[in-house]
Amino acid sequence: MDTLTRLEATVRQRLSADPSSSYVAQLNARGLPVMARKLGEEAVETVIAALSGSEEELVGEAADVLFHLTVLLAAKGVTLERVMAELERREGTSGLEEKAQRS
Amino acid sequence: MDTLTRLEATVRQRLSADPSSSYVAQLNARGLPVMARKLGEEAVETVIAALSGSEEELVGEAADVLFHLTVLLAAKGVTLERVMAELERREGTSGLEEKAQRS
Amino acid sequence: MDTLTRLEATVRQRLSADPSSSYVAQLNARGLPVMARKLGEEAVETVIAALSGSEEELVGEAADVLFHLTVLLAAKGVTLERVMAELERREGTSGLEEKAQRS
Amino acid sequence: MDTLTRLEATVRQRLSADPSSSYVAQLNARGLPVMARKLGEEAVETVIAALSGSEEELVGEAADVLFHLTVLLAAKGVTLERVMAELERREGTSGLEEKAQRS
Repeated sequence: MDTLTRLEATVRQRLSADPSSSYVAQLNARGLPVMARKLGEEAVETVIAALSGSEEELVGEAADVLFHLTVLLAAKGVTLERVMAELERREGTSGLEEKAQRS
Repeated sequence: MDTLTRLEATVRQRLSADPSSSYVAQLNARGLPVMARKLGEEAVETVIAALSGSEEELVGEAADVLFHLTVLLAAKGVTLERVMAELERREGTSGLEEKAQRS
Repeated sequence: MDTLTRLEATVRQRLSADPSSSYVAQLNARGLPVMARKLGEEAVETVIAALSGSEEELVGEAADVLFHLTVLLAAKGVTLERVMAELERREGTSGLEEKAQRS
Repeated sequence: MDTLTRLEATVRQRLSADPSSSYVAQLNARGLPVMARKLGEEAVETVIAALSGSEEELVGEAADVLFHLTVLLAAKGVTLERVMAELERREGTSGLEEKAQRS
């Protein structure tokens, strides 16, 4: 099983755990706006790490983005599988065609 | 091979392709600030979809985040494997301990 | 009257104008999530311009942030005067004390 | 003198102050990427407050955006006056024409 799938399983278990023992449960207890905010903030930090940080910082921030995206999707009841299926669907079309379809 | 690994391979091939035939090559030709901007913008759209969009919109925006994160990392020469290793390393520590270590 | 106050008055007038004749009315017709998205995107572009763009780009992006913040506040019925009063209130306390109170 | 102009003057004075006595000096000591990150994060929080927060939260987050935009511009040596002149210039053209010119 790949890392994100395993992470998703762990996150789903912890969402309803005791907030005093789990960071994911704490986030869930604080509500969706906080979970969404975390994703937004980590994306900003990834942008900045890519432009003016070290490779190590970029790796850390990218991991934060994946973590908080996984948490947000789990809290919304949306599976990573569905997101991956959407990526697969797009890969089937050429990049330029896909872009044209979207705009 | 999982979806992101396959996407990463495709993206790496296309980075140096002819911009007239590939969206990824176009992004690369426009430079790192544009690739970073795309990630930031898609994250903003994911935040908004999570708070006030449909599930389908959230799936589409999350796919955009993963796509543009993959492009940005590839352009910086950072492998997804390294990011996944960082996620694995953190999963080994409990959520709350990890958070404490980071702050 | 300063620039933002004048801009706010113009924006408030245009919010309910005919979308075919006004960009502000178009944004309003597309709804709050689109107006919020614009602010988020322009902030990302300002971050990037500050780190890797020209001064002229930074000026343009900062103007976009102020414009879309004004539009969003007007659409929510929140006056700039109230935001400025909050800034004034904070200025009254020293920077470090203020930060301590917030956290 | 309006609030932002006064804030800008205060911020410019504090940029080079002792970091132990001023939040602005602390930000400046931490460097441009941190100042840019603050703007990005506050914009994300404003987006979220506009979509799912109270009016009071929106006022507070909008004030944070204006504060950190002022700090970032001051750190880059760009005056608010220049940004306001750009807004004035655009106001002179109709919203739709302006949009057309930009795209």
